[in-house]
Amino acid sequence: MKKTLPYGVQDYLPDECYNKQNVEARIGATFSACGYDRVETPTFEYYDMYADVLASSDRMFKLTDNDGSLLVLRPDITLQICRIAAKMRPGVKRLYYKANSYEYLPNIHSARTREFAQTGVELLGETGIEGNVEIVKLAIESLLAAGLDDFLIEIGDVRYFKCLMAECGLVKEDAETLKELVNRKDSLGIELFLQRTNMAAHFKEQFLLLPALFGDCSVLETASRGCGASCKKVLDELGVICDHLTADGYGRYISIDLGLLQGLEYYSGLVIRGLSGKMGQSILDGGRYDDIGGRFRSGMHAVGFAIGVKRLLVALDAEKKLKALPPCRYAFADCGDARSVLMQKVNALRKQGARVVDSFCRDRADLERFCRENGIGIGLLVAGGAVVEIAIEEA
Amino acid sequence: MKKTLPYGVQDYLPDECYNKQNVEARIGATFSACGYDRVETPTFEYYDMYADVLASSDRMFKLTDNDGSLLVLRPDITLQICRIAAKMRPGVKRLYYKANSYEYLPNIHSARTREFAQTGVELLGETGIEGNVEIVKLAIESLLAAGLDDFLIEIGDVRYFKCLMAECGLVKEDAETLKELVNRKDSLGIELFLQRTNMAAHFKEQFLLLPALFGDCSVLETASRGCGASCKKVLDELGVICDHLTADGYGRYISIDLGLLQGLEYYSGLVIRGLSGKMGQSILDGGRYDDIGGRFRSGMHAVGFAIGVKRLLVALDAEKKLKALPPCRYAFADCGDARSVLMQKVNALRKQGARVVDSFCRDRADLERFCRENGIGIGLLVAGGAVVEIAIEEA
Repeated sequence: MKKTLPYGVQDYLPDECYNKQNVEARIGATFSACGYDRVETPTFEYYDMYADVLASSDRMFKLTDNDGSLLVLRPDITLQICRIAAKMRPGVKRLYYKANSYEYLPNIHSARTREFAQTGVELLGETGIEGNVEIVKLAIESLLAAGLDDFLIEIGDVRYFKCLMAECGLVKEDAETLKELVNRKDSLGIELFLQRTNMAAHFKEQFLLLPALFGDCSVLETASRGCGASCKKVLDELGVICDHLTADGYGRYISIDLGLLQGLEYYSGLVIRGLSGKMGQSILDGGRYDDIGGRFRSGMHAVGFAIGVKRLLVALDAEKKLKALPPCRYAFADCGDARSVLMQKVNALRKQGARVVDSFCRDRADLERFCRENGIGIGLLVAGGAVVEIAIEEA
Repeated sequence: MKKTLPYGVQDYLPDECYNKQNVEARIGATFSACGYDRVETPTFEYYDMYADVLASSDRMFKLTDNDGSLLVLRPDITLQICRIAAKMRPGVKRLYYKANSYEYLPNIHSARTREFAQTGVELLGETGIEGNVEIVKLAIESLLAAGLDDFLIEIGDVRYFKCLMAECGLVKEDAETLKELVNRKDSLGIELFLQRTNMAAHFKEQFLLLPALFGDCSVLETASRGCGASCKKVLDELGVICDHLTADGYGRYISIDLGLLQGLEYYSGLVIRGLSGKMGQSILDGGRYDDIGGRFRSGMHAVGFAIGVKRLLVALDAEKKLKALPPCRYAFADCGDARSVLMQKVNALRKQGARVVDSFCRDRADLERFCRENGIGIGLLVAGGAVVEIAIEEA
């Protein structure tokens, strides 16, 4: 019998699971406090729902159903939420989730995980710029609620790049190449690429500037100098987010990045990415994807984000914020008589929220040894018809 | 694009998800109070781990991994817990889980679900009869914690049937047939079957009695009359469970059933099944499976149970115990000025645990309409530099 795990998946053992639960509960409470309702979705869906939307269909776990349909382990929860929201009554909806998504990685040597815990929100319906503000703010408050201190939410808008593209008239293939270069902040690569095009000089300047257009909100000012009206409108909207979040006291958690172009096909406006100061990888991803919402119901706009729970745990660990699972506070020994007196005490303690474990011991000496071995502070047994609490000294 | 769900899976929409979360949280708190630590396991495992143990390998969702290994969506969480426990230091371990399991049902018309939420415990290590008592007691306390009133935990022991088999010397095939008949409490079937065997008369009597050997603890007395020493030992152990649980005040929640023979290959002793008084299906299943534990580590005994969360929700619904998700208590409108004053109030309320939602309204009339439409009790806005609370009258 195989007793090992397939690659790219993991067990969460008690200590890590305890921290995971704590973090998820605090984030969930934050979502709920802001009016978001939790939903749960199935682990698998028809492949068709994802095939049109997500570019990386070779990155999905596929199963054939008995009727010949192709199923996939959900690569993403957002589309499931859109599917649900499209069947609810129209109007603004706030939904959140906590579930695992799956990525089929054919390379066994990949350090990535194939099953990853996510918790996130979707704000559906026409919410415009105020919706964007709410989502960015909630992203910050969620990470703070989880206990993270050292992080930045990078904020961009894919429409800025799309506007520049439209203005300079680049063909789709070249746009794709340029996007990749900008996303990597590969200034030299951009320069070499631009040399090969016959783009007007002021556009070249604008693109060359792009990898450097990140930092505090003053970046928006720099960016707006060379661009047209539609690009300016995008920058003005980002300015509103800056203003509101600064007013809310969250200025130090945000950073503008106009070169943030991940998922250009997926997102239709705002894009955000949360980075831990202690870690290279992003721990939060999101943005606005009105076009995807619209596929499920005409005009259904959507904005949201997902937190990568495992990455967040790693970031919290780097900040030394994780705790060991506390041992039980009490252990009891049923020494044969007056069991009902003992159990009344045990039940009362448990009702108060204390963790009380049966030692399966039969006498005091055994119980004390059990408590010491397991880091338990107080032993309980019945003597002379009454419960005795034995304080255990630390070894 | 397909926007429907594959058959046999479901979304949990906000109201049902709210109840599911409540029930799972209360049961989880009960497990934790009794010293159980939560673990999380991957959704898929190697097929090999299950193939030897679970009879119904055609009931598993199978995937081929890129290295040719056969994977399955977990049909059962118990084996995963055994796999984990076998790697931990020896001694008694208490672990609990809350996760979905999967059953591949080739019949599209089946009313069964193909993804089902389970929460349960495993008590691992040598715990003997005291472990059995703890598990039956915890089964009762878990269902009570969930809010269920009208239920019974049926208690049996597969060794009783196995002892009778050994004593009467029935061949394996006939034993299998007889087991099915007993499990269905098919008295006529048993009689016809026994007529075809040349078993000693007093054994026939014993088997004919079996379907009727259920009810209160006096059943044990009846059963013990005709059987040998090894069978008697099994009945004595069930008697200890009866005595302890009656002493603990749980007598009315238990019922002995010596004909409870589900999973005869899986279980090695105690078997329990929780039945809602309002529903035919079982909502809790478990027992002792020392042989399975032993496959993962020599001598590792194990006893536990799993609650079917969806079935429990149906049973709670039948008892009218489910609640509607409460609407948010507050909605606010940012009317343009003194946003920071408003947000301070909003944040303070949220910290106190209140649900406060942004109405995206711009004036008082709109805010009041929004509150009324959404069942929200109090509107918040800033007027004259201070936060005003508007109590909304119910329509």
